[in-house]
Amino acid sequence: MTEQYDVVVIGGGPAGNAIASGLQAQGKSVLIVEADLWGGTCPNRGCDPKKILLSAVEAQQAAQHLQHQGLTGTPTIDWPALMAHKRGYTDGINDGTLKGLQHQGITTLHGQAHFQNDGQLAVGDQVVSATDYVIATGQRPAILPITGQEYFKTSTDFLDLDEMPKRVTFVGGGYVGFELAAIANAAGADVHVIHHNDRPLKAFDADLVQDLMATMTADGVTFDLNTDLQAIEQTDDGLQLTAPDFELTTDLVISSAGRIPNADQLGLENVGVTFNRHGIQVNDRLQTANPHIYAIGDVSDTPVPKLTPVAGYEARYLVQQLTQPGAAITYPVIPTQVFAVPKLAQVGLSATDAADQPDKYRVNTLDMTKWFSYYRFGARQAQARVIIDQASGQVVGATLLSDVADEMINYLTLLIEKHVTLAQLQQLVLAYPTPASDLQYLY
Amino acid sequence: MTEQYDVVVIGGGPAGNAIASGLQAQGKSVLIVEADLWGGTCPNRGCDPKKILLSAVEAQQAAQHLQHQGLTGTPTIDWPALMAHKRGYTDGINDGTLKGLQHQGITTLHGQAHFQNDGQLAVGDQVVSATDYVIATGQRPAILPITGQEYFKTSTDFLDLDEMPKRVTFVGGGYVGFELAAIANAAGADVHVIHHNDRPLKAFDADLVQDLMATMTADGVTFDLNTDLQAIEQTDDGLQLTAPDFELTTDLVISSAGRIPNADQLGLENVGVTFNRHGIQVNDRLQTANPHIYAIGDVSDTPVPKLTPVAGYEARYLVQQLTQPGAAITYPVIPTQVFAVPKLAQVGLSATDAADQPDKYRVNTLDMTKWFSYYRFGARQAQARVIIDQASGQVVGATLLSDVADEMINYLTLLIEKHVTLAQLQQLVLAYPTPASDLQYLY
Repeated sequence: MTEQYDVVVIGGGPAGNAIASGLQAQGKSVLIVEADLWGGTCPNRGCDPKKILLSAVEAQQAAQHLQHQGLTGTPTIDWPALMAHKRGYTDGINDGTLKGLQHQGITTLHGQAHFQNDGQLAVGDQVVSATDYVIATGQRPAILPITGQEYFKTSTDFLDLDEMPKRVTFVGGGYVGFELAAIANAAGADVHVIHHNDRPLKAFDADLVQDLMATMTADGVTFDLNTDLQAIEQTDDGLQLTAPDFELTTDLVISSAGRIPNADQLGLENVGVTFNRHGIQVNDRLQTANPHIYAIGDVSDTPVPKLTPVAGYEARYLVQQLTQPGAAITYPVIPTQVFAVPKLAQVGLSATDAADQPDKYRVNTLDMTKWFSYYRFGARQAQARVIIDQASGQVVGATLLSDVADEMINYLTLLIEKHVTLAQLQQLVLAYPTPASDLQYLY
Repeated sequence: MTEQYDVVVIGGGPAGNAIASGLQAQGKSVLIVEADLWGGTCPNRGCDPKKILLSAVEAQQAAQHLQHQGLTGTPTIDWPALMAHKRGYTDGINDGTLKGLQHQGITTLHGQAHFQNDGQLAVGDQVVSATDYVIATGQRPAILPITGQEYFKTSTDFLDLDEMPKRVTFVGGGYVGFELAAIANAAGADVHVIHHNDRPLKAFDADLVQDLMATMTADGVTFDLNTDLQAIEQTDDGLQLTAPDFELTTDLVISSAGRIPNADQLGLENVGVTFNRHGIQVNDRLQTANPHIYAIGDVSDTPVPKLTPVAGYEARYLVQQLTQPGAAITYPVIPTQVFAVPKLAQVGLSATDAADQPDKYRVNTLDMTKWFSYYRFGARQAQARVIIDQASGQVVGATLLSDVADEMINYLTLLIEKHVTLAQLQQLVLAYPTPASDLQYLY
């Protein structure tokens, strides 16, 4: 007999768990299906473990910054101990998440979900049926289709490495490549980042990306730009990477050339749901081509960055939509960032887009390196581009490159969303001296 | 001949400089008088140098937190190098501030200002006169009036110490005592904090103060509570401190028992301006008993904490008031904090006050130590008390104890001032994972 639910959620990551919890709390009968680890990418093999590893890099950097300026001695990274610290967090995620779901009364099922011709959903040898389905299966790392692609490892492997190899190469200069390169470099590896053109991190301000690369280069990372990798071969000396006019031998090669939607094993063709390389196609109510099937989070093809807090936002929207249908989804400004060394963060309108309308927008380009907030801890680099709407006097966008860019970008996101002008900001008292004390100088 | 100005500002610190700049920009003729260092306490001998010294402590702590969890080796503090780093900032403040004022066309005069019987102001052998005067002379450390008080040094001395003595004692458990104790302790000194009763940092949540003291005690600081110091004596072994049932020998003894207004040398009695130990008495337009004399910043007796950003806020108010008189001053919520290890920060309504009205307020007491944001860097302690107004669902107060309390308290200040409910917060997307990602779990 087929079990019947109000909603079946496919995918037990941040998006799926959030919507399952939200719908269960609204009195719906909910089944959630996960094919791999409960908790999904972010806590198991994404943002969280990455940032645990980065914690050691940040602490090392902080000590490095003040050498000869107040501190003597820089800690070294003990990779196995750092990995144990990471596992101290990640090891509990699967069971903890599963128990949390069950504790809420949500039915859970482990296995690969597959839509059948009759519209029902098979999970292993079980078949379930629901009024509505929500697909939240996320993405997985893309493997570059080249000769020797079987030698590629992924960010998932990197984030669980028992030992740091002597030579590590990332193929693809997106945020994953930059972040993991910064970690591997700090851990002592000889690190290369190979990128097919001269514009890695293409969604970020080009000048500040150049500044970031300059700092990472000074720290020992090699960027091989305009390098179109063609083959990987195992040799006695390691893995040999070849491209036109390029050769490099490495011990570990990570495919960091983007991520692809986990949409190809769901039998979507049986239920009329379409997808492309950006994800499952949805309308502005997150509804797929099949009106009873929705897609949220990284697996959906939406006009916004694929990030954990966006998944949560979409889940909250869809809980509302499946209980009290209303308006189309609208998104707030969404900060994006590269947790490299230093950090690069961006929100809202870019300087490039602002430059097209000089009458409408003013762009403040600020070198903050010698400002108190950065001088105090010996920062090497602190840059900002802030976009102000001339008519309203409000911040509408910013790109920041500094060790505290992650803190600043969140303040700026709040100022943008709350439409705060300089005069209004000055009606507030923020703690001094803190990075927030500088906000008034960014306008 | 007496020089005549629209406004004479007495005191070239943050308050005085801000009002002088603001009035000059409004077309007023402005003279500013400083008796000591241009720039005042905050950049020369207050918040800024303190936080430069703290930078080394923070970096050392960050490394310490991850020992055996990913890092090997903890940097040691090289006090002379750290002091040189501090002086690299503070040495330029006096001249830089003076030039900045002059560049704006503000007339500057160096010397002690003293009101004369005829209402004019003498500065050395010059006499000046103005339509309005603004007193912004700040505060100085109070010296406890006990036997041997001549042996007391102050925070000013501590922040410019060439060498860190082996034994350092702070008398007075306010924020100055706690902050400098944390620095001296990290720099290797044997540190005591003597406090006359059992409630140091009395403006802060009592439980979290206890937690802070427990951590600082574990780090090596000794708190001598209920100790009413009576005498300091020079002996062969150092400075001997005595109180009933208490004796301690130390090398450096800092009076950190509060600060007193710089109001006693201004000849205020000649112009009818009154003051007490809290400062110059002002009405809700920052006007003293003499309607043409105003007082702002730390020297004024207002109902708010004496902090640099408050001085700036009052200066902006008074610029407005002296050009276009309007309403009485009102203050936003003002975050206060102790930059100790870890940091203690507070804003808005306290848990104690909230407890008086349980129907109106909900108090969330949260141990965040094992939360991802703190686990990741090996934090030892992260506590929060957050006060929610039941009817509106808005945050109205918070006390935080953690290594990132300074970041969190600024977000909370923004949420309080912008009246943000949980539902509204969840309409925002903030960068993940960052301390800001936790805001939604504080409601």
